[in-house]
Amino acid sequence: MTASNTLSGVFTPVVTPFKADLSVDAERFLALCRWLLSQGAGLAVFGTNSEANSLSLRERLSLLDYLVDHGIDPRRMMPGTGCCSLEETVQLTNLALRRGCGGVLMLPPFFYKGVSDDGLFDFYARVIDRVASSDLRVYLYHIPQVSGVPISYGLIERLLKAYAGVVVGLKDSSGDWANTEGMLKRFPGFAVFPASESLLERALPLGAAGCISATANIQPGPIARLIEQFGTAGSEQRQAGVSAVRSVLQAFLMIPALKAVIAARSDDDAWMPVRPPLTGLTSAQAQDLLARLAALDFEMPQWKREPA
Amino acid sequence: MTASNTLSGVFTPVVTPFKADLSVDAERFLALCRWLLSQGAGLAVFGTNSEANSLSLRERLSLLDYLVDHGIDPRRMMPGTGCCSLEETVQLTNLALRRGCGGVLMLPPFFYKGVSDDGLFDFYARVIDRVASSDLRVYLYHIPQVSGVPISYGLIERLLKAYAGVVVGLKDSSGDWANTEGMLKRFPGFAVFPASESLLERALPLGAAGCISATANIQPGPIARLIEQFGTAGSEQRQAGVSAVRSVLQAFLMIPALKAVIAARSDDDAWMPVRPPLTGLTSAQAQDLLARLAALDFEMPQWKREPA
Repeated sequence: MTASNTLSGVFTPVVTPFKADLSVDAERFLALCRWLLSQGAGLAVFGTNSEANSLSLRERLSLLDYLVDHGIDPRRMMPGTGCCSLEETVQLTNLALRRGCGGVLMLPPFFYKGVSDDGLFDFYARVIDRVASSDLRVYLYHIPQVSGVPISYGLIERLLKAYAGVVVGLKDSSGDWANTEGMLKRFPGFAVFPASESLLERALPLGAAGCISATANIQPGPIARLIEQFGTAGSEQRQAGVSAVRSVLQAFLMIPALKAVIAARSDDDAWMPVRPPLTGLTSAQAQDLLARLAALDFEMPQWKREPA
Repeated sequence: MTASNTLSGVFTPVVTPFKADLSVDAERFLALCRWLLSQGAGLAVFGTNSEANSLSLRERLSLLDYLVDHGIDPRRMMPGTGCCSLEETVQLTNLALRRGCGGVLMLPPFFYKGVSDDGLFDFYARVIDRVASSDLRVYLYHIPQVSGVPISYGLIERLLKAYAGVVVGLKDSSGDWANTEGMLKRFPGFAVFPASESLLERALPLGAAGCISATANIQPGPIARLIEQFGTAGSEQRQAGVSAVRSVLQAFLMIPALKAVIAARSDDDAWMPVRPPLTGLTSAQAQDLLARLAALDFEMPQWKREPA
């Protein structure tokens, strides 16, 4: 089990809606965040599936302020704050802390490849030292197939030793169960979140904190219930249900696929745009996706934008 | 041969000096830029070897202003302006243009991997359309082993068709001669810069515009002379000389190695710091490096900081 001052449950790397001119659509973003919270999911805004690195620093700072200013509970937020530069990582992390976020999810600097654990330790250490707050809760972000910069067990060990109580967890997006299992066994009390709800049946018994999953954008409630009621009657069925939806989405480009589902279920095509270098689904792909979900009896609850 | 309104010769991805607290040392940076220009090299500031992505946007903007404000000739500058976000890429490119830079070297957005040429074309097109100036000269930056996002022949073809006279060249850091050769043959008039002076003897006869090389930080004059006097008596010897220096440097981590050489030759250890995730050379490595260069009779001309 994880320490009481860490986050747990299902967190959503909330997709970021864009207007036709590709500017951020803060109002729709807020509406989705409110709905996700109402379904029992926390908000890992500014993740990979949020197109966070396609947002400028300025956009991320102002969007985080906007959410909290409009009543989103920061204690259920774990915004992504890891940038390639120290200064920008510190700036974003400072804002998250000042606004009361429960934690931050921190990518390693991801431009240079083949960097040493010494260099990565130094980066994280300097960020933490500059932020200089015992309220800080850092979740490391291991997504080597995208970042190109893995978080090794050795690095975790050093950070846990140097920053106990501050470096408290990790999102494992590697999709490599052996890696997730190894971390869960090696670092008891460390809040490990696999990136897929499909792994919950194996991860929760080993003490996983929950999951941070792209598809929580469209099935937050079912994942939340699976976690809350894990091990009780119907658990296997709940696992099978969320895993089936996950499998359908994984057959498509994840980010435009999530936006296509949200657009369809909220009757609002304004959800569709993605920023380059990503591209949208073709309408044939979107139709195929929706048909496959319908075949599962998947129904995403309707929700409407409320005035901000 | 390249069109007359494009840059040519040797360009230096100028290393960026940092103070002990890792803030940018603008004064030393200016001194190095002045010396490089005096040796006949242009300035590809904010490149991979400049630790550009370890600088914040704010730092890059203010450093570019600082150089031009202090008399650096912008027509000999090709700053790196490619960021993961559209907005930041446009902002940096706009400043470069406003300050009169001869061109910009533009990384593709480098967080997402496996993106399509459609997505990359859309990114570059939107940047160019937003900057909206016929004075813009874009050099694409192909460095797949670091960025993880290659620039394909197909993408170049589409950009040349859509933005003739604006997309004018490319830095090829792949180290793959077959790729460089293919581009030189396929796109006549396109200003291709290999990333190593060692390739000049093969690239110049095929019409390469010059090179943009890390080691131009320490041997700008010899590379400039090799290009200017290419094909005249002594050319082979000049090529062998610069290639030998390049080979020595390549046996070490390039960025801290360049800083160690500059520190040694300017009697100024303040050149040594790198930003994490990079790490410095050990003193044994630095001594080994300097000994190997000394064995080549390599001498980097002394230069001293002038008051800013």
